[in-house]
Amino acid sequence: MKIKSAPRIREMIITPIAITDPPLLNAAGLHAPYALRTIVELITDDNISGVSEIPGNTSINEALEEARQLIIGRSPIQLSSIGRELESYFGKETASARGETPWDQRKLVHIFSAIEVACLDIIGKITGLPVVDLLGGKMRDRVPFAAYLFYKYEGAGGELGFNIDRNATGWNAARQAKAIDPEGIVHQAKAMGKTFGFRSIKLKGGVFEPDQETAAVFALREAFGEHIPLRIDPNALWTVETSIQYGRKMEGIIEYLEDPTRGQKNMSIVRQALKTPLATNMCTTSFDDIPGSVAVGAEDIILSDHHFWGGLRASMELSKICSTFGRHLSMHSNSHLGISLAAMVHLGAALPHLPYDLDTHYPWQSDEVIKTGRFNFEDGAIAVPNEPGLGVELDRQALARLHQNYLQCGLTKRDDETEMQKVVPGWKFEAVRW
Amino acid sequence: MKIKSAPRIREMIITPIAITDPPLLNAAGLHAPYALRTIVELITDDNISGVSEIPGNTSINEALEEARQLIIGRSPIQLSSIGRELESYFGKETASARGETPWDQRKLVHIFSAIEVACLDIIGKITGLPVVDLLGGKMRDRVPFAAYLFYKYEGAGGELGFNIDRNATGWNAARQAKAIDPEGIVHQAKAMGKTFGFRSIKLKGGVFEPDQETAAVFALREAFGEHIPLRIDPNALWTVETSIQYGRKMEGIIEYLEDPTRGQKNMSIVRQALKTPLATNMCTTSFDDIPGSVAVGAEDIILSDHHFWGGLRASMELSKICSTFGRHLSMHSNSHLGISLAAMVHLGAALPHLPYDLDTHYPWQSDEVIKTGRFNFEDGAIAVPNEPGLGVELDRQALARLHQNYLQCGLTKRDDETEMQKVVPGWKFEAVRW
Ligand SMILES: [Mg+2]
Ligand SMILES: [Mg+2]
Repeated sequence: MKIKSAPRIREMIITPIAITDPPLLNAAGLHAPYALRTIVELITDDNISGVSEIPGNTSINEALEEARQLIIGRSPIQLSSIGRELESYFGKETASARGETPWDQRKLVHIFSAIEVACLDIIGKITGLPVVDLLGGKMRDRVPFAAYLFYKYEGAGGELGFNIDRNATGWNAARQAKAIDPEGIVHQAKAMGKTFGFRSIKLKGGVFEPDQETAAVFALREAFGEHIPLRIDPNALWTVETSIQYGRKMEGIIEYLEDPTRGQKNMSIVRQALKTPLATNMCTTSFDDIPGSVAVGAEDIILSDHHFWGGLRASMELSKICSTFGRHLSMHSNSHLGISLAAMVHLGAALPHLPYDLDTHYPWQSDEVIKTGRFNFEDGAIAVPNEPGLGVELDRQALARLHQNYLQCGLTKRDDETEMQKVVPGWKFEAVRW
Repeated sequence: MKIKSAPRIREMIITPIAITDPPLLNAAGLHAPYALRTIVELITDDNISGVSEIPGNTSINEALEEARQLIIGRSPIQLSSIGRELESYFGKETASARGETPWDQRKLVHIFSAIEVACLDIIGKITGLPVVDLLGGKMRDRVPFAAYLFYKYEGAGGELGFNIDRNATGWNAARQAKAIDPEGIVHQAKAMGKTFGFRSIKLKGGVFEPDQETAAVFALREAFGEHIPLRIDPNALWTVETSIQYGRKMEGIIEYLEDPTRGQKNMSIVRQALKTPLATNMCTTSFDDIPGSVAVGAEDIILSDHHFWGGLRASMELSKICSTFGRHLSMHSNSHLGISLAAMVHLGAALPHLPYDLDTHYPWQSDEVIKTGRFNFEDGAIAVPNEPGLGVELDRQALARLHQNYLQCGLTKRDDETEMQKVVPGWKFEAVRW
């Protein structure tokens, strides 16, 4: 068989959406009632469409609009040259430049990932292959995720804000409950585990002082036993000394310690002092950070995120870099829907090694934008779609509704500090707190 | 479109061949009248076939025979899991173990490359895409190669051995000529350039003492001027001191110095002393060598070889490692025919960056095993095939003839030392000579 003429992208549809997000606490503050995502749809001249989902904000949406002129008329198969075009336009430095938060200003990789995933969806449909097979093929049929626990205020998010839906049952009820102490966290973990079957647990820390968060880890250990691996992520709010002190307390209890402290150098000092492996999605977040990481030995595990590392193929390359330099690869997540999840699952299925269950916020979301509805977890894992491409199809009614949410909610970017200040006046983000 | 059922490999045909090779001199001795290659053909249950070509010897052919049982019945699309199977069978250490020569015993990567390239040929035919498009797409339409000059004895190789074909004309006559001094090398370069249009020149050194080989480089500069980049490869026969001494003499004259001395540490010392970039296909030849290379700064350019780095996708990953660590990627070659060349061209077209013209021995060969006959160079470059897969088809008559050569020539492995001893009794390979 021969593709007679290369398909061309004739349309690029950019739809910002706002999805219901409960009031989750983290080092940066508080999740707003809605999380912003952007859905990108590419359509070829023979009407094959590919979709992707990325973390959204007005500046990224504007950059996507600018990228449209570079994308229209191009072949979705020519991923490397599309990448080169975007690099020329946005500047190579935007692959690794960073502001306050780890992935600020990463226009190039952020936008390329949106376009690459949608193109891979198209290539999959053209060739009849699921995306995993475009990445070297399936290394596993099911991709395992971890329960991702959050300290949170009572509330459902969305229109309900800090209120809850009294008719909700099961996890839908539990996800609205308050969790601000070890008991609340254990209750949350049990409810989440019951519904999704997760086999490992991550606690988002950096909210309360280390004593309290460590107590929650020990309470989880007590409740779940040694066969459910645990992790905690203080989002770099701890000093080196605090990291070593509490890291030692949790030695043998957690499977890894995620970003206890800020920066590759500090991480390497903590790493030398502990037997527990260190993971990061903060100190090594771009290919430009890799030489520094190797030079000091900053971490054992890189928590990649295809949205910020430049797509699925770049994540496979990162995986090779990790195995070459004695690191493991696992995955970071933000609040997201099923298109991002599908991409994560295809990637997770293709990765040669997957020693740790991946992160996902997915249980915290209740919306969906794909026709088959929300993905099902079985024993904490998701079966890899077998259909060509990503194996998901846009639900246009849902998309329209979520776009209305976006227009009505008035949010333009993620700003957890401002949300927190609505609850705790004067609250300020601090890069190092304890 | 959806592939109804995954194709399965039902047959694996392994054909050792011997191809005419002239008496080329190098650090290891002398090329035998024939070079050994092995042609691998995979055929699916729906009769799609994929081909590849690798450097051959009896031990590799035996290992390929052993691999057959692991390959039959598998999907050619599932490249990563095929790799995992081979790794389990042959042992991970065979990806980087080495003997006297850089790639001794690299069974795993050597055999995986044979199977991966044939599978990519099949995937390309199934999907209608040329192999370059399975690697991220075309970054250039034509892949440029360098003139690869050799000191040599008079002779055509093959049946003629040290004799020549008096009826030959053009390059076919010139390639039989003796070249053992600067004049011979310049004559060879002019004849090769005239026929193939190469825009840069590499001299295989490590044959004569550094004064004579450096004189040849200066003679080439004199003959071709500053716009034809030059390189020399003494194959690590020089001491650190000699490398620095002659490297300084050629500073500004050569675009890079290839493997002047042995080992990453020695290379890094030479590299510190020179402004000229250093290239290697000897001190950094596997992913396991990368951390050591990064630690000491062994080279500026890695000359990859998909036959020994584990295939085309691994070479793309190597390219990402190179750009991450401030290295360039270019290509090494051995005596080869058009199937290897096609694979090199697809890879060369897909590589994001290609700052240097690639190596190829191809002009020294006169046989071919593909139906379209020998590839044409235009201005030293080869146009990337647009057909699905590699874009080459086996010529079975030629294959049968070259297999007869193999049976008749009696060679079982490359052994340049033994060949040299036939001319210079008692000649011995020395790892460091000058
Ligand atoms: Mg984190
Ligand atoms: Mg060399």
